[in-house]
Amino acid sequence: MKKAVILLSGGIDSAVTLYLAKNKGFAPTALIFDYGQRHKIEIKYARHICKIAGCPQKIIKLPFFWKGSSLLERKSGIPLGRSFRSMKKGIPSTYVPARNLVFLSIAVSFAETIDATSVFIGAHTEDYSGYPDCRQEFFRAFKKAIDKGTKKGKRIRIYTPLINKRKKDIIELGLQLGVPFGATWSCYMGGSEPCGMCDSCRFRTRAFRQLGIVDPYLGK
Amino acid sequence: MKKAVILLSGGIDSAVTLYLAKNKGFAPTALIFDYGQRHKIEIKYARHICKIAGCPQKIIKLPFFWKGSSLLERKSGIPLGRSFRSMKKGIPSTYVPARNLVFLSIAVSFAETIDATSVFIGAHTEDYSGYPDCRQEFFRAFKKAIDKGTKKGKRIRIYTPLINKRKKDIIELGLQLGVPFGATWSCYMGGSEPCGMCDSCRFRTRAFRQLGIVDPYLGK
Repeated sequence: MKKAVILLSGGIDSAVTLYLAKNKGFAPTALIFDYGQRHKIEIKYARHICKIAGCPQKIIKLPFFWKGSSLLERKSGIPLGRSFRSMKKGIPSTYVPARNLVFLSIAVSFAETIDATSVFIGAHTEDYSGYPDCRQEFFRAFKKAIDKGTKKGKRIRIYTPLINKRKKDIIELGLQLGVPFGATWSCYMGGSEPCGMCDSCRFRTRAFRQLGIVDPYLGK
Repeated sequence: MKKAVILLSGGIDSAVTLYLAKNKGFAPTALIFDYGQRHKIEIKYARHICKIAGCPQKIIKLPFFWKGSSLLERKSGIPLGRSFRSMKKGIPSTYVPARNLVFLSIAVSFAETIDATSVFIGAHTEDYSGYPDCRQEFFRAFKKAIDKGTKKGKRIRIYTPLINKRKKDIIELGLQLGVPFGATWSCYMGGSEPCGMCDSCRFRTRAFRQLGIVDPYLGK
């Protein structure tokens, strides 16, 4: 089994990535970040997914400074009920400064620490076209930085298996792999029930609707 | 005044970089990392330097996982009394996995958070030729990753003003800038007195000797 590190948020994309990594013969350890996100409930779901998947987990607490994102500050509103077209324009207020840069750097560092050479991240551009740190060109550039700046250098690989997939295809893949979608969480709002209206809920519910499947997430 | 973020360890290089940044008209905020280093005493020195320089400081606690470095684990020995030639060979046991990658990523994220576009790091290749994350090519590659993966992108600059300087020249520069070298700490060993024998002490004492100056650090 090849050791790997995976960033796990508790959402659909990272859950499918986890099952994909296992399916490809990797032995992943999940890093779950507690960074002051208003939807802290996702951590509970991420931990639960690990338990179901039999995946070791590590909670990383980083509540040190992040501000200036509606994903962190309750006083600033999460955009609700936006059209899919408007979601694709500009950088959303839910952008957290350099979040994937920080998360991936810690994942690479942890990979070196446990002697793994593979890092998985479930980012993809369809839902997150506005986030600069979810784009293929960022991952490519980041890979070059670790080639130069780490002990293992070029031996470390960053896997982004979902990068060009649509949410619908990600869910289909997850269904084939037996991903427990009822144990995932997507809503940004921070309530105990999914709001159904934030960008994250809307992408998710649309994809399930396109597949003609009831999302086990609804009615939670 | 242009806002900046600076990585401050409490050693000579970062202290000189701080004074240099101030001298160039920047208003820096220092990030001081508490990452489980055995020479935790450096944090006290870093805080003290900030106080003297009138620089706001932020302590970042990252004691979450790092292992596999003699700088972290008391059971593994710090190399002592090595020749300068042997210090330049290979990656030393004091290498901390992807440390500068993690520190810089957090610095960039913090810079975006406080609306700064300049990040300073006192790394240089002379003392640290074995550390992959102290090399110019790493900083160049990292810069490209932030160009692609952050909101501010290309507007963010990474300053490495000491990158090609020798320790002796760094100290001379620091003397001109009024850096309080007596308030800096370099020793890796973790004692309350500098050991004088670890790589870091040896580079430092040699440089002061070359300048014909008594290091205010000795006899502490």
